[in-house]
Amino acid sequence: MILALAGGVGGARLARGLAQIDGAELSIVVNTGDDFDHLGLRICPDLDTVTYTLAGIANPHTGWGIAGETWNFMTQNAVLGEPDWFRLGDRDLATHVLRSRMLREGRTLTEVTTHLAGRFGIAAAILPMTDAPLRTRVETAEGELDFQDYFVRRQCNVPITGLRFDGAAGAQATREVVSALDRAQAIIFCPSNPYVSIDPILAVGGLRSRLEQCAVPRIAVSPIIGGKAVKGPAAKMMAELGHAVSSLTVAKKYLGLIDAMVIDREDAHLAHAIEALGLRVLTTQTLMRTLEDSRVLADETLQFAQALAAH
Amino acid sequence: MILALAGGVGGARLARGLAQIDGAELSIVVNTGDDFDHLGLRICPDLDTVTYTLAGIANPHTGWGIAGETWNFMTQNAVLGEPDWFRLGDRDLATHVLRSRMLREGRTLTEVTTHLAGRFGIAAAILPMTDAPLRTRVETAEGELDFQDYFVRRQCNVPITGLRFDGAAGAQATREVVSALDRAQAIIFCPSNPYVSIDPILAVGGLRSRLEQCAVPRIAVSPIIGGKAVKGPAAKMMAELGHAVSSLTVAKKYLGLIDAMVIDREDAHLAHAIEALGLRVLTTQTLMRTLEDSRVLADETLQFAQALAAH
Repeated sequence: MILALAGGVGGARLARGLAQIDGAELSIVVNTGDDFDHLGLRICPDLDTVTYTLAGIANPHTGWGIAGETWNFMTQNAVLGEPDWFRLGDRDLATHVLRSRMLREGRTLTEVTTHLAGRFGIAAAILPMTDAPLRTRVETAEGELDFQDYFVRRQCNVPITGLRFDGAAGAQATREVVSALDRAQAIIFCPSNPYVSIDPILAVGGLRSRLEQCAVPRIAVSPIIGGKAVKGPAAKMMAELGHAVSSLTVAKKYLGLIDAMVIDREDAHLAHAIEALGLRVLTTQTLMRTLEDSRVLADETLQFAQALAAH
Repeated sequence: MILALAGGVGGARLARGLAQIDGAELSIVVNTGDDFDHLGLRICPDLDTVTYTLAGIANPHTGWGIAGETWNFMTQNAVLGEPDWFRLGDRDLATHVLRSRMLREGRTLTEVTTHLAGRFGIAAAILPMTDAPLRTRVETAEGELDFQDYFVRRQCNVPITGLRFDGAAGAQATREVVSALDRAQAIIFCPSNPYVSIDPILAVGGLRSRLEQCAVPRIAVSPIIGGKAVKGPAAKMMAELGHAVSSLTVAKKYLGLIDAMVIDREDAHLAHAIEALGLRVLTTQTLMRTLEDSRVLADETLQFAQALAAH
C-alpha cells in the first residue's frame, strides 16, 4: 500500500504513474487549501487535477480542466455580468455542480471525491487531506490575498512574504487519511509545490506528527529541476521567501518528514549535500512529459522505497 | 401601462410583441408553477422563456433555451451518472447557476429575475407571479406527478385527471405584481396554456379576486386555433379534462376574469357563441411565427383594449 501526498500537475502525474504499477494499492492525499467558492460552486482545483489526470482526461496544455473543453458557459456568464477571471469549462462544470449539490446535501468532500473517482473508474483512493475548510492565504506587501486571487487573478504577480493556512487549527485529518497512513508501506511526497501543495497537508491537525513518526520509507520527489519549477510558482515562491531555488532547499524543508529524495539528473551535483543532511538520494529523470515518463518514475521511486525498507 | 399574464412560448411571443409597442410600459406576470430544483439548481422554465424571448436569444425550434446552444455540460453530467432527462445547455446554465446562487444568498426570485432582465437590456418588467414556492402537480391515473416529470420526462404521455397547485395557500402575489395590477390600463391574458400557465397565476393568493375586480379592459388571446394548441399540451389537457378543444372553452374558463377575447380567423365561427357569454371578440391572425406577427397581434390587441376602454 502506497500513500502519495499531492497537489497540482506534477503531483497528479506521478500519482498517475503510481496508479499504473501492478499490485500496488494506492491512496493519494490531496491538498484542498486551494479550494474556494466561486459563482456559488465549490471548486477544488487540486482534487480535480488529480482526478482528471488519473481518469486520463486532463487537459495536457493548461495543467487544469478537461481536454477538449468548450467555454460557452463562461461566455454567457460574462453576458450576465459575472466574473470571468476564473475559467470553468462546460464539461468541468458538471463536476462543480455535482460536488456543490452533494456538499449542500450534507455529504463530506471525501464522499463526493470518492463518488466522482468511481464514476471515472479510478481504482486509487483519492482522499482530500481534510473535510474541514482549510484555506491557503497568501501574505504579500499589498496585504493578504485569497489563494486563487493571487494564483489566477493576479497570476502570482505580487511577491509573497508568507503563507497562512486559515482554518488549520480546526482541520483534522479524515478517518480515511489516518487509516491510509496507518496501512502505508511507503509514503511518497509527489513533486508538488512545497509551500502551497504539501505545506497545507502538513498543516492539517495530526498529519505532520504522524508523518514524522512513520516507520516506513518516506520519499520526496523534488519539484525543482535545475533551479526551476517544471510548472507553477514553486521556484518564484522559494526565491521570494529567501531560499535558494534548489532541490537542496526542498530537502531541508522536508527534514524530519522524509528519509530520502528523488532528484533529477540535472541536479546530480546536489546529491552529496542532500546526503549530508542524512537523507538517501536517487538521481534519475524526474521530468514527466508522457504517461510512460510517469510510470517509469513511479516504478523507480517504488523500487527505491523497497530498497530503503530492506536496508 | 400594460400588464400581461404569460407562461411559455406563445405567451412569451405576444409579450415580445407588446414590448415592441412604442410608448407602452409593459409588465409581464409570469407563471412559476413549473419551477423546480434539478441538479441542485433552481430552474424556472417560463421565466427563462419570457426573458430569452424578449432578449431575442430564444431558441426558435425548441421553445426553450438559448439559440445556438451547446450540450457539453450535459454530456459530462451523464458521465458522472447524473440524470439527463431535463436538458440544460451550456449557455443556459449561466442563468441557472447565477439564479441559484442569488436565491441562496437571500435574494428574492423577483430580484433575481429583474437582475437577469437588466443584463439582457430588457425594458419590460418581468415579474414572477410570486416569490413563494407554488408548484404545479399533475394528477393522473398513475398518481400525482411533479410537473416537469409529467411534461419533460414523461412527454405528457399519461392522461391527466386534474391539476393541483402545491403551496398556493401560502403563496402571495409580490408587491411588484400588486403594484403593476393597480397601475395597469389593460390586462392581457397571453395565449398560454390555461391549465398550467394561467391557472397557477390565478391560484396565487389575491390575484384571482384582484383580476375579477379590475376596472380596466381585460383581454384573453386564445391559445387554441382550429381545435389545436399551437405548441404544448393545452389541447390534450383540455380534451382529457372533458372539454371541447376550442376557444369557446377558453372563453368559458376565463369568464368573470375577462371582458374580451382575441381569436384566430380560423375560429371566426365561434365568435357568436363567445359573444353570447357577454364577451367582446376580435377575430384576427393569432398565430405568431415571426417577430412581425407578434408585433402586429400586440398592436391589434392594444387597439382593441383602447376601443373597449372608450366604450
